[in-house]
Amino acid sequence: MVLLYHCVSARSFRPLWMLEELGAPYELRMLPFPPRALQRSYLEINPLGTIPFLVDGDTRMTESAAICQYLAERLDPQNLRGLAVRPQEPGFGAWLNGLHQGEATLTFPQTIVLRYAHFEPDGRKLPQAAEDYTKWTLARLRWIDAVLQTHDFLSADRFTAADISVGYALMLGELLGLRPQWPKAVAAYWARLQQREGFQRALEAQRAAALAQGVSPQHPLGP
Amino acid sequence: MVLLYHCVSARSFRPLWMLEELGAPYELRMLPFPPRALQRSYLEINPLGTIPFLVDGDTRMTESAAICQYLAERLDPQNLRGLAVRPQEPGFGAWLNGLHQGEATLTFPQTIVLRYAHFEPDGRKLPQAAEDYTKWTLARLRWIDAVLQTHDFLSADRFTAADISVGYALMLGELLGLRPQWPKAVAAYWARLQQREGFQRALEAQRAAALAQGVSPQHPLGP
Repeated sequence: MVLLYHCVSARSFRPLWMLEELGAPYELRMLPFPPRALQRSYLEINPLGTIPFLVDGDTRMTESAAICQYLAERLDPQNLRGLAVRPQEPGFGAWLNGLHQGEATLTFPQTIVLRYAHFEPDGRKLPQAAEDYTKWTLARLRWIDAVLQTHDFLSADRFTAADISVGYALMLGELLGLRPQWPKAVAAYWARLQQREGFQRALEAQRAAALAQGVSPQHPLGP
Repeated sequence: MVLLYHCVSARSFRPLWMLEELGAPYELRMLPFPPRALQRSYLEINPLGTIPFLVDGDTRMTESAAICQYLAERLDPQNLRGLAVRPQEPGFGAWLNGLHQGEATLTFPQTIVLRYAHFEPDGRKLPQAAEDYTKWTLARLRWIDAVLQTHDFLSADRFTAADISVGYALMLGELLGLRPQWPKAVAAYWARLQQREGFQRALEAQRAAALAQGVSPQHPLGP
């Protein structure tokens, strides 16, 4: 059974959502955010101190979008749930692109905003960097906006791990208050994603696990 | 034949290196850096204005590490070159993790340093952000440093696309002058990667294409 280290609504929400979509058994270990500061012993488990951390037999992984692809291949090798797109399918390139774009292009820049507009103490806040990378992120939504003009999902005309990767970037964008600045098709897509049972189950799973393990069930910017 | 849009020693060096390792035919179209500013017509090809941009039949891709995985699967479906790691192999998780880590965790933070220490005009430089993300990047090298203590490569004990993904992050780190601060095993790994014929051919290919297409053959920070 896979073991996932998770903070409420952090990037590790991607593999959690994936596990719920797969209907696979898993163990969820909750950490306070940021774990590097609030639970120093975590560094003995993951020397980077980052979230997520996945343990599956001898495999150890730290990259949330990579974990989504890993789980799709290893827990559903026949791709019965359709969360992977195969190299022979026409959507294969779009699928891989979405998996990577969700994190590298759409999430990382938002963590700069999170850092310099919210988490750093007042003397170290950098409004210029927060504004620069807000603009940067919004400009990069043009790619998925173009796809979503004519498709419900990012690849292969079905819900896949690529939608989970990009979906989490939108979850973070909503926490940052950026939704009013999204293109209309992107906001509608995010509304659709949140309707999924797998998404709802992942929200409930993190809430239940947080309460059971004595961790706040809210994201630092959460409602 | 695949078509790759490329700027000298930009992220698009990853797919170029990959193509040379695969020994596959390709067309290389060079752009001045940054293309968004210096070649506005490029926005009609890639609306994000980013590099790389890959065209293969109906497939369009923008994410350099995703393109590496795509090329491995599509141009070498039997994995004769071993650049992919298969789901059944023990190194599969490490391979996916390296592919993503190279860009999302090890390259993006360095582009913040590039922006705020070098590319922004003087009134908009942010030494604090450049210093913060230099430290951030160096701390994240701990993961590959641990692997490289006992292995020559990041996954499956052979050279793969994961080494190309992380290798480019080190190429950028060297341009930024960070090599003296790398752990010893990381510096030795980068020295080994540069010895590869595929890497040397990729360097030569971008130089020849830049000269033939009237673009400077040097990176803005290059020697």
